[in-house]
Amino acid sequence: MTETAPIRYELIKEEKHTGARLGILHTPHGSFETPMYMPVGTLATVKGLSPEELKAMGAGVILSNTYHLWLRPGEDIVEEAGGLHQFMNWDQGVLTDSGGFQVFSLSDTRKITEEGVKFKSHIDGSDLFLTPEKSIQIQNALGADIIMSFDECPDFNHTYDYVKQSIHRTTRWAERGLKAHQKANQQALFGIVQGAGYKDLRLQHARDMVSLDFPGYSIGGLSVGESKEEMNDVMDYLLPELPANKPRYLMGVGSPDSLIDGAIRGVDMFDCVLATRIARNGTCMTSSGRLVVKNATYARDFRPIDEHCQCYTCQNYTRAYVRHLFKADEIFGLRLASIHNVYFLLELMRQVRQAIREDNLLEFREAFFEAYGYNKPNARAF
Amino acid sequence: MTETAPIRYELIKEEKHTGARLGILHTPHGSFETPMYMPVGTLATVKGLSPEELKAMGAGVILSNTYHLWLRPGEDIVEEAGGLHQFMNWDQGVLTDSGGFQVFSLSDTRKITEEGVKFKSHIDGSDLFLTPEKSIQIQNALGADIIMSFDECPDFNHTYDYVKQSIHRTTRWAERGLKAHQKANQQALFGIVQGAGYKDLRLQHARDMVSLDFPGYSIGGLSVGESKEEMNDVMDYLLPELPANKPRYLMGVGSPDSLIDGAIRGVDMFDCVLATRIARNGTCMTSSGRLVVKNATYARDFRPIDEHCQCYTCQNYTRAYVRHLFKADEIFGLRLASIHNVYFLLELMRQVRQAIREDNLLEFREAFFEAYGYNKPNARAF
Repeated sequence: MTETAPIRYELIKEEKHTGARLGILHTPHGSFETPMYMPVGTLATVKGLSPEELKAMGAGVILSNTYHLWLRPGEDIVEEAGGLHQFMNWDQGVLTDSGGFQVFSLSDTRKITEEGVKFKSHIDGSDLFLTPEKSIQIQNALGADIIMSFDECPDFNHTYDYVKQSIHRTTRWAERGLKAHQKANQQALFGIVQGAGYKDLRLQHARDMVSLDFPGYSIGGLSVGESKEEMNDVMDYLLPELPANKPRYLMGVGSPDSLIDGAIRGVDMFDCVLATRIARNGTCMTSSGRLVVKNATYARDFRPIDEHCQCYTCQNYTRAYVRHLFKADEIFGLRLASIHNVYFLLELMRQVRQAIREDNLLEFREAFFEAYGYNKPNARAF
Repeated sequence: MTETAPIRYELIKEEKHTGARLGILHTPHGSFETPMYMPVGTLATVKGLSPEELKAMGAGVILSNTYHLWLRPGEDIVEEAGGLHQFMNWDQGVLTDSGGFQVFSLSDTRKITEEGVKFKSHIDGSDLFLTPEKSIQIQNALGADIIMSFDECPDFNHTYDYVKQSIHRTTRWAERGLKAHQKANQQALFGIVQGAGYKDLRLQHARDMVSLDFPGYSIGGLSVGESKEEMNDVMDYLLPELPANKPRYLMGVGSPDSLIDGAIRGVDMFDCVLATRIARNGTCMTSSGRLVVKNATYARDFRPIDEHCQCYTCQNYTRAYVRHLFKADEIFGLRLASIHNVYFLLELMRQVRQAIREDNLLEFREAFFEAYGYNKPNARAF
């Protein structure tokens, strides 16, 4: 598989004091440096932002959701359009997930069997059935550069016995996905490691997935309610099990602290809707912590959202203006806040990569956590 | 006043067969060719669009609404920010209306006296009182290049006696506004001509306003329910009364047919929310008429919204993609449709100006009306 794999991970440097590594991931649609945060474009659009805006911020890869695109507009329409890149006017990297996480988050209606998962559409309640083969077939049609194996994402606090049988099923699903994959020379299929918080199951599943020789590995089932310590603990023992010559992707994780803590342990890729979701609610990430720009306190504050930020929003607009737009329900406000937050995380990752170059990632973490307010008692999760 | 007027209308050419004229309006924030369509940024933002997008489309002037900015964020905040231009990051021309039209459209709650108008806020129902002096004071604080005299906009079908006393009051209000105007060397105050559909009243009011020697004249009280024929009829007899060396602005009119018919009669400036409002509802203006892009018929239509259009949307996206965004409630869809519609009207005005240069505006009108579908029986208003 290695010879035909459409992506290539180039290791540039390992940080001296941590497990962090600097690399470049080469894809059929350009290359990007790692560790990298991937903005989320659930429905073939990063909410409110244009491809040009994302490029100007330095986003080299985005994520889209297989489950959502399957339902709307349908993978056949995206395929007819020439694939996701052409459909959404994005010529850089794209990654799609498998739909497994959406099945997990729609747990009220799901029924899992060896064959696949029956569940109900969140749009119209209609019956849906997703299998490993169907997930790959949809992802082949969507045409992302990196695609995901169909997995079950068990709850972090599920019983040992349940998680044990779940990871073995996910391994069998991964084998079925590999067989179903029709575009192995164009789309890199990643295996997903599950196992909740059980160390021996995580290690077992990592070994099982590695034995299937995927071109990259994803860490699933984290940031689903467990504590930061539990998440870091899993990464501490799991990352060393993954091959150093392949990229590692921590799924659905994108708070500033977790991006840094993941990078420290050797994660190369991250995605999360947090940045854009809280932006649409008027909350911004800044170099001195969270700032709820729609608050009344900013009505006459003519400073930028973050005085140290070089993003389009901070270079051109004040807190007072962005606050006004939110109060008046003007969609340009969502756009300005989204631009800022996505830029903030992309810039954070640039700083993380620079710290890896300079072998001072732990010092960077300390300074960032202090400035952002993570060291305060009762610090908010993001 | 002419010597200190901050704007200057430069007449370039008169069309041979119509009343149309090509000109340049010079303002403290740049110059723009006329006839010109002005996109509407009610609350200091053209809904969904950035200043850079507007500039790229060739918008040299936009309109903002005094009434709305008075309520949110308050003219004092805009003034503290350095004025509207700086507040919203727009270095081209800005025009503000007087609030008179909003008073008219909130007619359920208004009470008009000689002093001014009592009415209720559309946001919280609180009591508001707007006078000619207050309107100018707010507009002085907002700092637009062109501002409007406070007027009453009587219903087109109001009685002759009512409209007669109304235009005289509007003239008295205009005199009070001139006296209240504190920035006559920075902001050009236009007088507004009313008179509904009564020819002698329109002509009387035009003469009264012209005698006050404003640097520009607005035509109010049209596109408020009267027929296209009635509107054109008013313009036919009214425009010749207005001085040729000053700009003429037809307020609140912006359907493609009315833009052309207004230009033919000598109007230099237009504004209307139509383009952006219908865009947000998934309706696009195209060279072959209206296209409701969110309709199911476009689900697999991989052509641009308008195959003859050079806008960002049409150069990069398909009907299928824009339709998908609308169906999925993605705000990028509103943005793409808004870009297209605003570009369409700006491009239409470029074509109108070219037709004036070539003395074939009537032929242009004929061809445009035919292609757009205005000549069909039961053609929709826009």
